[in-house]
Amino acid sequence: MTDSTQQVNGHSTNGKAFKVIGTRPIRHDGVDKVTGRALYANDPHLPNTLYGKILRSPHAHARIRKIDTSKAEAYPGVHAVVTAADMAEVADKIAEMGEDAVNLRYLAANILAHDKVLYHGHAVAAVAADSPHVAEEALKLIEVDYEVLPPVLDVKEAMKEDAPILLEDLRTDELGKKGDKPTNVAAHIRHQRGDLEKGFAEADVIVEREFKTAMVHQGYIEPQASTVIYKEDGRVEVITSTQGPWQIRGQVAELLGLPVGKVVVNPTEIGGGFGGKFTAYTDVPAALLSRKAGHRPVKIALSRTEVLRATGPTSGSYIRVKMGATKDGKITAAQAELIYEAGAFPGSPVGAACGVILAPYRLENVQIDGYDVVVNKPQTGAYRAPGGTNAAFASETVIDELAEKLGIDPLEFRRRNAAVEGDRRPDGPVYARIGYLETVEAAMNHPHYKTPLEGKYRGRGVASGFWFNGGGQSCAEVNVGADGIVNLIEGSTDIGGTRTSMAMQLAETLGIPAEQVNPKVVNTESIGFTSGTGGSSVTFKTGVVAYELGKRLINQMREGLASYWDVEVDAVHFADGVFSHGDEKLTFSEAAKVLNDHVGPIVAAYGTTARGAGPGFATHIVDVEVDPETGKVTILRYTAVQDVGRAIHPAYVEGQIQGGVAQGVGWALNEEYFYDAEGHLLNSSLLDYRMPTALDLPMIDCVLVEVPNPTHPYGVRGVGEVPIVPPAAALANAIYRAVGVRMTELPMNPAKVTSAMLQLA
Amino acid sequence: MTDSTQQVNGHSTNGKAFKVIGTRPIRHDGVDKVTGRALYANDPHLPNTLYGKILRSPHAHARIRKIDTSKAEAYPGVHAVVTAADMAEVADKIAEMGEDAVNLRYLAANILAHDKVLYHGHAVAAVAADSPHVAEEALKLIEVDYEVLPPVLDVKEAMKEDAPILLEDLRTDELGKKGDKPTNVAAHIRHQRGDLEKGFAEADVIVEREFKTAMVHQGYIEPQASTVIYKEDGRVEVITSTQGPWQIRGQVAELLGLPVGKVVVNPTEIGGGFGGKFTAYTDVPAALLSRKAGHRPVKIALSRTEVLRATGPTSGSYIRVKMGATKDGKITAAQAELIYEAGAFPGSPVGAACGVILAPYRLENVQIDGYDVVVNKPQTGAYRAPGGTNAAFASETVIDELAEKLGIDPLEFRRRNAAVEGDRRPDGPVYARIGYLETVEAAMNHPHYKTPLEGKYRGRGVASGFWFNGGGQSCAEVNVGADGIVNLIEGSTDIGGTRTSMAMQLAETLGIPAEQVNPKVVNTESIGFTSGTGGSSVTFKTGVVAYELGKRLINQMREGLASYWDVEVDAVHFADGVFSHGDEKLTFSEAAKVLNDHVGPIVAAYGTTARGAGPGFATHIVDVEVDPETGKVTILRYTAVQDVGRAIHPAYVEGQIQGGVAQGVGWALNEEYFYDAEGHLLNSSLLDYRMPTALDLPMIDCVLVEVPNPTHPYGVRGVGEVPIVPPAAALANAIYRAVGVRMTELPMNPAKVTSAMLQLA
Repeated sequence: MTDSTQQVNGHSTNGKAFKVIGTRPIRHDGVDKVTGRALYANDPHLPNTLYGKILRSPHAHARIRKIDTSKAEAYPGVHAVVTAADMAEVADKIAEMGEDAVNLRYLAANILAHDKVLYHGHAVAAVAADSPHVAEEALKLIEVDYEVLPPVLDVKEAMKEDAPILLEDLRTDELGKKGDKPTNVAAHIRHQRGDLEKGFAEADVIVEREFKTAMVHQGYIEPQASTVIYKEDGRVEVITSTQGPWQIRGQVAELLGLPVGKVVVNPTEIGGGFGGKFTAYTDVPAALLSRKAGHRPVKIALSRTEVLRATGPTSGSYIRVKMGATKDGKITAAQAELIYEAGAFPGSPVGAACGVILAPYRLENVQIDGYDVVVNKPQTGAYRAPGGTNAAFASETVIDELAEKLGIDPLEFRRRNAAVEGDRRPDGPVYARIGYLETVEAAMNHPHYKTPLEGKYRGRGVASGFWFNGGGQSCAEVNVGADGIVNLIEGSTDIGGTRTSMAMQLAETLGIPAEQVNPKVVNTESIGFTSGTGGSSVTFKTGVVAYELGKRLINQMREGLASYWDVEVDAVHFADGVFSHGDEKLTFSEAAKVLNDHVGPIVAAYGTTARGAGPGFATHIVDVEVDPETGKVTILRYTAVQDVGRAIHPAYVEGQIQGGVAQGVGWALNEEYFYDAEGHLLNSSLLDYRMPTALDLPMIDCVLVEVPNPTHPYGVRGVGEVPIVPPAAALANAIYRAVGVRMTELPMNPAKVTSAMLQLA
Repeated sequence: MTDSTQQVNGHSTNGKAFKVIGTRPIRHDGVDKVTGRALYANDPHLPNTLYGKILRSPHAHARIRKIDTSKAEAYPGVHAVVTAADMAEVADKIAEMGEDAVNLRYLAANILAHDKVLYHGHAVAAVAADSPHVAEEALKLIEVDYEVLPPVLDVKEAMKEDAPILLEDLRTDELGKKGDKPTNVAAHIRHQRGDLEKGFAEADVIVEREFKTAMVHQGYIEPQASTVIYKEDGRVEVITSTQGPWQIRGQVAELLGLPVGKVVVNPTEIGGGFGGKFTAYTDVPAALLSRKAGHRPVKIALSRTEVLRATGPTSGSYIRVKMGATKDGKITAAQAELIYEAGAFPGSPVGAACGVILAPYRLENVQIDGYDVVVNKPQTGAYRAPGGTNAAFASETVIDELAEKLGIDPLEFRRRNAAVEGDRRPDGPVYARIGYLETVEAAMNHPHYKTPLEGKYRGRGVASGFWFNGGGQSCAEVNVGADGIVNLIEGSTDIGGTRTSMAMQLAETLGIPAEQVNPKVVNTESIGFTSGTGGSSVTFKTGVVAYELGKRLINQMREGLASYWDVEVDAVHFADGVFSHGDEKLTFSEAAKVLNDHVGPIVAAYGTTARGAGPGFATHIVDVEVDPETGKVTILRYTAVQDVGRAIHPAYVEGQIQGGVAQGVGWALNEEYFYDAEGHLLNSSLLDYRMPTALDLPMIDCVLVEVPNPTHPYGVRGVGEVPIVPPAAALANAIYRAVGVRMTELPMNPAKVTSAMLQLA
């Protein structure tokens, strides 16, 4: 543990001699945001804009017999009506690709329903009109002839032999492989190691429990919106709120039959995404409408109800976990079965969940089975550590119960079983240097854990969590002005303050203040391919690019100064922000002036596929008080300990942790998609879909453990997703310690807690 | 002449095996322009925009005793009023810089008058209000107490001992060097070689004449307009119509006391510039207003009257030329004196004029004197080959007269004296490979020149012209998508189709069609320093960058394919748009897909200071008919022969030539700034300031001679400025051949021609 350091609420004890990294400069985009000047997706109003609205299915499951748009088309002020019939290019492409077209077909059918509607709110048609009101009126004039079918909403129901089948082309054999049998099971994953039977036989205690979690939404504050112009020459201009401009570009191009280079995506500021802004829900219909409506710009802005009904939330799930351990606290066997709602089309995060569920532990005998199951709900999208919260809710509750039954402190139990460098994760990969053990030890030594919790109906819970963290392709360009100000042009849209985190890494490399770097996010044509702001990848991957560009700038400037000073390049040195040759010394800014004035402009670009993002681990401690009458859970204190690799901007790292915990708390205690038996979503507004407010949350203390990621020059690990993984389990464990009930269903709202307490009584 | 080729009206006889260069693809920005979608500077309307108007001096010369803005400030709807007093930062800087501040001081005082107004229309104050109308009303409430001074409008008057002095700090000695004597002569330039007296003594014929030309305006169709936000953190965002975004950035930064990196200039499309859009006339007042008006965006859009009164036109001039030649047609001596109107502040193009005036000829005995003289007219700005038209009007008329007196064909006379590679220009530099002789010979051999011109009052004139052509700093970035479409991100604003010319040079290098390159002009932060679109530099300098980036992309892609194919880089070849290794072959687009999918993103940036732009020469032939009653000159036929180095996109080269000739014709026959004795500009509208219309011009035939510029990989020379140099002289010579009068004043409007004819009679 010699290479780990801790920051407690921002007081850095970081031993390394960084000048910029670890400080907390004001964000570069701050002024534009606090003054309201920053542009969000619904802000631009281009001349001649038409307004689009989307007609949505009132049924959870139905066959579309016929759509008659003639009355809507004839309505005054309407300029175009589109349905799946207007996606001829993608239909041709699907026909041509044959079986390889499966993902494309599902993407197309989710964005505009083809022959069936598969969930309440599924898009069926879209109208472009002079105003949003006219468009809404026209929607009512579209006549859709539906053959209503029975819906299936529960994964276990959907797996039954006689369940209604959603996708007629989805066929499998008994083992979940491609076969002939119509099915709702889109995939079955299995990870297996050691001898499960032997492992359980060696156990002194075995715990087995079943868990159920509800579908929940990311709840980003800004609904999807986009303005699209499909130009006369087949070029498409998109202005949209997205985490992945290149992904949106790809989807628009693919669904409209265009080369990607003909589509430009201009990302605006983003009012939250959390994984939910990678799909072209509004962009594709707007493009189709623009093409049909004389190439005028078409804007589609979703309502909150549309967001909740028809943009990808994350899976509800059924999970069964069985674990055994010896008296001295060694886990001998672990088995998990995870069944995740894919929503209407395949693609739940069950694969990730299978990787997360037992990741913190060194396990010899383990088996994990995951099932991706389609049900009549919106197709799920990514949500912060997708699948992780459900998984950890199950496994970390069982861990807690095992520790309790063995009479071992729950953190001590985790410490004894913690995976370290060289251990193999249940789903295969061998860990490089990780900091899980460090988070457990930091939690054990934290004043929160050392302070006894007193009072009736009060309890303290702990839980750990894991997230992979991603890398990927990223590009940036830098140019240096005569005043030494460095423009950093990047493709990574900024959700969590990454403009500043990138500027800081470049500034550190160049030996200048963060404020001297001007980071800008540009569109998909102005910089090379950059994978999206997701997977906690940006500070890692674009950081690698910023670092490399810093090195390149230094070399380029050394070369320029060598020619200016008329010496060999090797004789020009750079250290601590100063270029030198003998007695000649120039600060970075002075050198920038000399080079711009006498040698030439300074510009460089670099792109890479950054691999080796460091896995992240967290251990959370929470104290709760349960109201014995109402079952309401009040959080008294929360401490989140996390290995962040290297906190570039500690305030943003803390912000990510606090935000992740807040969302985890909402998911754990209140949030859920509530359906009636016919599959109608009954709580599609933020009045009924209950997200936590500031009043529901205490201060969330953060402890930043820094075990540097060896594959990043400054040790960065992703930090944004891990913190949502432990909260549900930590709260369940705290509730148990408070009132003695083991909660096995999310959300643990007052009704469920009361009901569990009544059963106990 | 083995390395020259000709294109006659686009029929290329180019021998080189180019695939893209020399073709005429549709311009990349065409659809946006013909659909009206392209954004010009007056198009954007940001939320909360205020509208700025500028108060202008009613006097040509006056001291400002006091400005009282209180009533204007109190007027409802007014948010800010600024005067020079609001430029404290620049005043401090000027004080600090002392004598070095001269240019900055003049720039500041031209943009907002300080202690004096120096021309009719000089900006005195500016108002920002809720609407342009309110701002205009408020202008009337600003009370300026002027002490009116006598103006001086003519350069020869301004040089007199007792002339009113415009700038009290302008001091000189008898020789025009810095001294103690108050003066209006800002500079005196002299180029001298050989023995003038001996040269004239050797001459068999000597011609000496004096010429006068009027101040004229570029006449760009789009008036200056800009929207500026001065943000709370001292960052300034400018949206403007400019040829030089980095120049505007520099001026705004300098005049507001900011580092250049704090100012971002977003160039819109440009409705013409011709050199006139390099000064921050609207940008600086808008920035000052925005800062004072609560950081709201401020838009200032000039009216046509303001454009004519107060943005830099080009100099009127007085020129005297004396030349002698022997009977066998050798020029033995040449002397020229050029006195150019600087306008209110120093900076006429007399320096350039001294370089242009005798540039086409091999001269042993030569003396050129140039004077930059301030007068009470707007400060001059650059206008297409600044100073060249006036200069050639004088010298090429004298050449014509010499040839006539010697009985030698005027083109043959030029052929005998033509400068070639190795000759020294009168102002110093030695020519590398140039194509002047080739233009003379092509003109002599042209059907136009070989076809006799018959009819009374008809005459044929010829004249030649020279322009330096410029290079400079330029940067670009390229990125290649999986579909092989290459985005080319450049800083060179596109006036004459340079997006396409750059795309073509990159496409040629990469072996792909021009349409596969997507050229985009970005703002001053998104790419490195790029000097302006002026000096006929862009196709040369940014072309060098595009070529180098093509080479770098190829190497980068070879490296990527080597890793993909697992071979040495040297084993991966590229030719004709195909990468290969043994039997493996991938087209550029296929390789782009493989690399994007399996290796990583493809991105590169490059910047350089491009030197060695090839000088350009043109020889024009024009046939006219003069109406003997009215003096109206009608052009019957016009042929412009020009050495263009290499015509990348011949249609755009022809467009530049035709445009240059059209402007030269307007300048020659009609355009002039018309002042009354008090210095009021009397014709400040396009009804009174008479520019040529389509009805005034014949088809202008272009002959593209291609003598490649050895310092550019594809041989590019600048082409945009040369064509405005010969027209006035060619027309004067044609008028002489038609009606026997030697015109020595521009414009040669009906009144002047009639008056000359009457004097003759």
